[in-house]
Amino acid sequence: MDFVNDVIAWKRDGHELDAGRLRAFVDGVVNGSVPSYQASALLMAMVLRGLSDTETVELSRAMVESGKMLDLRVVRRPVLDKHSSGGVGDKVTLVLAPLVAACGAVFGKMSGRGLGHTGGTLDKLESIPGFRVQLPQGEFVRQLERIGVAVVSQSERVVPADRILYALRDVTGTIECDGLIAASIMAKKVASGTAALVLDLKVGRGAFMGDLHHARDLGRLCRLIGDFYGRPTTCIFTSMEAPLGRTVGNRLEVEEAWQVLRGEGPEDVREVTLNLAGALLALSDLGVDETEGRRRAEAALADGRAAEHFERWCFVQGGRWKPGEFHRLAAHQTRASRAGYLTGVDAMAVGQAAQIAGAGRRRIDDTVDPAAGVLLERVVGDRVDAGDALAAVFSRDPARRAQAAAVLDRAFTIGEEAPQRGRLMLGRMEVEG
Amino acid sequence: MDFVNDVIAWKRDGHELDAGRLRAFVDGVVNGSVPSYQASALLMAMVLRGLSDTETVELSRAMVESGKMLDLRVVRRPVLDKHSSGGVGDKVTLVLAPLVAACGAVFGKMSGRGLGHTGGTLDKLESIPGFRVQLPQGEFVRQLERIGVAVVSQSERVVPADRILYALRDVTGTIECDGLIAASIMAKKVASGTAALVLDLKVGRGAFMGDLHHARDLGRLCRLIGDFYGRPTTCIFTSMEAPLGRTVGNRLEVEEAWQVLRGEGPEDVREVTLNLAGALLALSDLGVDETEGRRRAEAALADGRAAEHFERWCFVQGGRWKPGEFHRLAAHQTRASRAGYLTGVDAMAVGQAAQIAGAGRRRIDDTVDPAAGVLLERVVGDRVDAGDALAAVFSRDPARRAQAAAVLDRAFTIGEEAPQRGRLMLGRMEVEG
Repeated sequence: MDFVNDVIAWKRDGHELDAGRLRAFVDGVVNGSVPSYQASALLMAMVLRGLSDTETVELSRAMVESGKMLDLRVVRRPVLDKHSSGGVGDKVTLVLAPLVAACGAVFGKMSGRGLGHTGGTLDKLESIPGFRVQLPQGEFVRQLERIGVAVVSQSERVVPADRILYALRDVTGTIECDGLIAASIMAKKVASGTAALVLDLKVGRGAFMGDLHHARDLGRLCRLIGDFYGRPTTCIFTSMEAPLGRTVGNRLEVEEAWQVLRGEGPEDVREVTLNLAGALLALSDLGVDETEGRRRAEAALADGRAAEHFERWCFVQGGRWKPGEFHRLAAHQTRASRAGYLTGVDAMAVGQAAQIAGAGRRRIDDTVDPAAGVLLERVVGDRVDAGDALAAVFSRDPARRAQAAAVLDRAFTIGEEAPQRGRLMLGRMEVEG
Repeated sequence: MDFVNDVIAWKRDGHELDAGRLRAFVDGVVNGSVPSYQASALLMAMVLRGLSDTETVELSRAMVESGKMLDLRVVRRPVLDKHSSGGVGDKVTLVLAPLVAACGAVFGKMSGRGLGHTGGTLDKLESIPGFRVQLPQGEFVRQLERIGVAVVSQSERVVPADRILYALRDVTGTIECDGLIAASIMAKKVASGTAALVLDLKVGRGAFMGDLHHARDLGRLCRLIGDFYGRPTTCIFTSMEAPLGRTVGNRLEVEEAWQVLRGEGPEDVREVTLNLAGALLALSDLGVDETEGRRRAEAALADGRAAEHFERWCFVQGGRWKPGEFHRLAAHQTRASRAGYLTGVDAMAVGQAAQIAGAGRRRIDDTVDPAAGVLLERVVGDRVDAGDALAAVFSRDPARRAQAAAVLDRAFTIGEEAPQRGRLMLGRMEVEG
């Protein structure tokens, strides 16, 4: 107790925490000897004082070593993964995972269940009847060897510190610290055995990072940790002003991902996915650069291999995938109040509407409705007439549907002139040397 | 939960908390709806962002109103109190309380048990066999009416928020915030029914405030709260480099206080006490200024009335006071390593030695040994020869005695030349208009 109090005071006064102190803190959080009220005080001191590069790396080390580390070298090929910092309508993993496998590389993800406007990738996959996300480690490895793609839920024994700290940060105003965020993201990837990683860092109104400068800082910290562990990490910065694609909701997003896998679907989802696929394939053992990687990914979308890999992946993980076959919930339509051009669709408002409709979690024990969500009928730049349908919100519960619709109504901005098209791909940070 | 999380984030981001938010926080802490991990995160944000004047006053209001408020107007005379910010060897209350009563004013204190190098005033009084500090409120009031002096333990129903918050702050590195300190001090005084207050703010190595500037800031905040509630508050700033007087330990300090009450004892204890007595009497209904107040206090020390009031006070509260009659513990003597002048006695080191010896508490459930402590044989400015006894440490436990002696050894600095005598009284802040 006294030692931890001294550690808290040390950070409070602006000093750097060394590896030993950070390890004592993380280990104490996991074994329960550091009570939550001391942990949250230290977290707040970290948020307000910031973490140095060294502290960030050492914190992630302490977190990695707080639990089990998976060794995926048995797969004998680099297991690639992609992480998104979180956006509205982000169904990219659903496309990217089988696409990368279709191109001959290995994509393996261990995913947690977080809070958000929609569920996470696990919830989206579980909107496919029968899809099993809880696989024993051996089965995970065999599946990677056999079909080159697997997405499973993270073992509780991997980075247990993160689960405890994240739940605490979520209710104590201590999410917002780049060092804590980077350590959390990277510790999980490192401990899960990821060989190389592409980070999709979202910037804009619908993301927690409002500007590119902030995203570059976070990317730099993540790469420091990746470098420390020898896990090459490429950062891609993408815009998150309007939702990605036209769907926000678990099963709705799987349906849209399927369109993209068949070479159709919204251009923005396809563009982000192809960029990430190029970057991932360049990190694989295929000996291709990003340009060639992207070219191969485009071919796999065009010739049906990506869609075929998605079907195989669902089958192997137990999912009975039938496009379009799901329970359609009653909808409330949002309509244009006047004629003009759709100049803005506020991603955050759309996300909130989807969450209210039942697509996401506010608390970790909330249940997610696979069929709930928002379908955008129009996107930024479209010409609309008064009364045109702009979006539909689907919810099982009439009261939630009405409440979500009220939020959704405020998401749309209509102007006199067609808006300039914003950039989707904002930049990248390559692996050095 | 979500509301509190928003309150935490609001303060974290540097915004001012309004009365409603502060009240929700304090009430939630008391009724248990705000868990300790959220409270400690908010406390750390308060420490690092600071509290504005308005926040400090509103926090103290929320704390006052979290419990019972005593109305001492039934006494029909202003009940005066004095609070010290905490120093080593500070036995001033033991002298001041009966002295003020001897001068015809009313001194009433409700005191808590804190952590410290020695026990608090309650522990010191309890080192007198039979002394009862737990009195029902009616008895407290009657004693004030009858003999003009009473010191009792604070009811658990008075400012319950402070007990919870203080225990939390103590283990989460969140003690150090002037707004929190001022709100804690003043809420207890206001809720205890104090009509007017003198604050003895200690400055120096043996105090938590290292410089006068800091002490003036804290004093200003306390007075803001006093003004808000119409409780005149005078601040006196006194030096705390070396211990006050020659004793540090509960019964040892009562013995020394008795000497001062008889017009004897160390000059520094007497000087601080007379200053505080003058300031208190000037706040009473006697119609005297500080100079006249001090003159009356000097007279009461000289003619035996102060000592007589002390004896009466002990008798009424059940204490069997016999000077010099207590169990003397085995001592370890600290001796001068060389000849010279004693240029420094580190109050903090002496305090630590006394605490190790058993005189104080590190944790709230530690028990205090009334006879343990340190007796200084020499004080700053004294000429010493090598081998002269400098101090004795008394402890029931041989191992603690040795450990305390090792700390005490480092407390003394011996130089070639006689040191300049530092100022004891550093300044004051008077009640305005």
